[in-house]
Amino acid sequence: MTEQLQAAAAFLRTHDCFDILTHDYPDGDTLGSGYALCLVLQQMGKQARVITTSVPNDYDFLQKDVLMQDFDTQTVVSVDIADEKLLGSNRAAYEGRIDLCIDHHMTNKVQAGLKLVDGRAAANCEILYKLFRLMDIQWTRAVANCLYTGVSTDTGCFRYSNTTAETLRIAADIMDIGCDTVFINKVMFETKTKKKLALEREIYNTIEYALDGKCAVIAATLDIQRRVGVGDGELEGLSSIPRQIEGVLIGITMREKTPGEFKVSVRTNGNVKASDFCARFGGGGHSAAAGCTVRGTLEEARAQLIAAAADFV
Amino acid sequence: MTEQLQAAAAFLRTHDCFDILTHDYPDGDTLGSGYALCLVLQQMGKQARVITTSVPNDYDFLQKDVLMQDFDTQTVVSVDIADEKLLGSNRAAYEGRIDLCIDHHMTNKVQAGLKLVDGRAAANCEILYKLFRLMDIQWTRAVANCLYTGVSTDTGCFRYSNTTAETLRIAADIMDIGCDTVFINKVMFETKTKKKLALEREIYNTIEYALDGKCAVIAATLDIQRRVGVGDGELEGLSSIPRQIEGVLIGITMREKTPGEFKVSVRTNGNVKASDFCARFGGGGHSAAAGCTVRGTLEEARAQLIAAAADFV
Repeated sequence: MTEQLQAAAAFLRTHDCFDILTHDYPDGDTLGSGYALCLVLQQMGKQARVITTSVPNDYDFLQKDVLMQDFDTQTVVSVDIADEKLLGSNRAAYEGRIDLCIDHHMTNKVQAGLKLVDGRAAANCEILYKLFRLMDIQWTRAVANCLYTGVSTDTGCFRYSNTTAETLRIAADIMDIGCDTVFINKVMFETKTKKKLALEREIYNTIEYALDGKCAVIAATLDIQRRVGVGDGELEGLSSIPRQIEGVLIGITMREKTPGEFKVSVRTNGNVKASDFCARFGGGGHSAAAGCTVRGTLEEARAQLIAAAADFV
Repeated sequence: MTEQLQAAAAFLRTHDCFDILTHDYPDGDTLGSGYALCLVLQQMGKQARVITTSVPNDYDFLQKDVLMQDFDTQTVVSVDIADEKLLGSNRAAYEGRIDLCIDHHMTNKVQAGLKLVDGRAAANCEILYKLFRLMDIQWTRAVANCLYTGVSTDTGCFRYSNTTAETLRIAADIMDIGCDTVFINKVMFETKTKKKLALEREIYNTIEYALDGKCAVIAATLDIQRRVGVGDGELEGLSSIPRQIEGVLIGITMREKTPGEFKVSVRTNGNVKASDFCARFGGGGHSAAAGCTVRGTLEEARAQLIAAAADFV
């Protein structure tokens, strides 16, 4: 790992004009990684920018110290991207062009000149923390905030099973640097809009149990999204709901994107491999958290998912 | 602090036949503290038992390695108890008899021969961790599980503003000792019974906003408790709900104990002091989390609380 870190550090030092790619449906870890790296490169006197498909409002604070720079791309780095398919609308422009891939997904399939991948890291920001330590960067609160956001959001604020003692020590070090944990935790884990509450109430009504209660499925249909007045970006937090229910081994969250197309998030307990489950539908991810897309009416799509789930519990 | 820790360590070494008192409506920190101390004393060849008013099912695992011992009490230790009033039904038997008080509430008022109180500790179990380190105890998974339960539950799994870098490092050390964090996090933070979901749906319907949305009040009336089929012990988690709503500075949770008597939990944001608010009603606690009791019909009790809240936002 040290060798990989050193190679990545050398790469960053000797290159310039960076496009930093984040994954589609961006979360705290890909954005935290992207903006932290961008801030560090800019501090080093380099040109850098973060390429995203969108930035949800809650994450706006991550980019407030980032300088807007205009340059011709020379170097492409991907952060927290397991597969170039996850580039979304940026796929056409960047596929096959990644020079350095920094990621923490075991299943990483990105083709890149140089790879810094550690599947044991709970968050990609843990890898960046180690990289920055090795590079002996000038630490700032802004960088600390980005890293803390990534580490905390990818571990459900240290609640998920991916959290290690090292995760907690890295978070402690980041707090010591100076980091707005109270603000970040509040925004990420402690704040619900009235809309969100209304959404949860609606979602609770859609819960379906299958396979003797070992599988639970919730669905944020377009109808519900319209009624509550929420967009797709506001549905991220839902996927933890079905897995939380006592006795559930496979928790499935269906988000209707367009009529008849569902983006599916799968969260598992026990030994059920979410990535194997989602691979059945052409998706992938981590062993306890993965995703895929399923087509059909709500009933058809749900039936397909439950039928597949039967092989896993 | 080191001196206080040394005095407490010496006290424990030179005494025997311990009754360890926990507070009423016991939570993970008082029970984790109690059972951890009991296990350590028993390992040292001493007699010890934990005195509780009840142990919620979820916490049963904490006592599975504790030996049942029968002896005449010689020494009384209180853990996580800020005030002898909080002994509940054990108050009559133990008030004025506490020899050693170990606590992390700034507002601690316990009269005791020896006090080990650190208001900066996020959880009482942090203090016990330091005490055990200093005593150089033989660490076991059972003790680690008790301490992790206390530290994690009192910080909302490291989410609340009381969490410090030291909290995270202590938790990391406890994980290194060997600790069932996955099981504990799952039980404490990731599991909801179907009943709990039904309860939340009901509670969401009781939300009342006041003072331009700066105050939110929810109420678990006896009627709701009956309809959902939950007892008072199953209402603990509700108090985080109103504070989570965007813009709320004072989140109030009313639990109807008997007709016309409400146990009130107050959680605050920003600079609002929950302990000052609850002091108005004869209660107390921490600056962001406190409690009191209010009497009247639901409407009367709620009106009293909102009227008081107006002075704090």
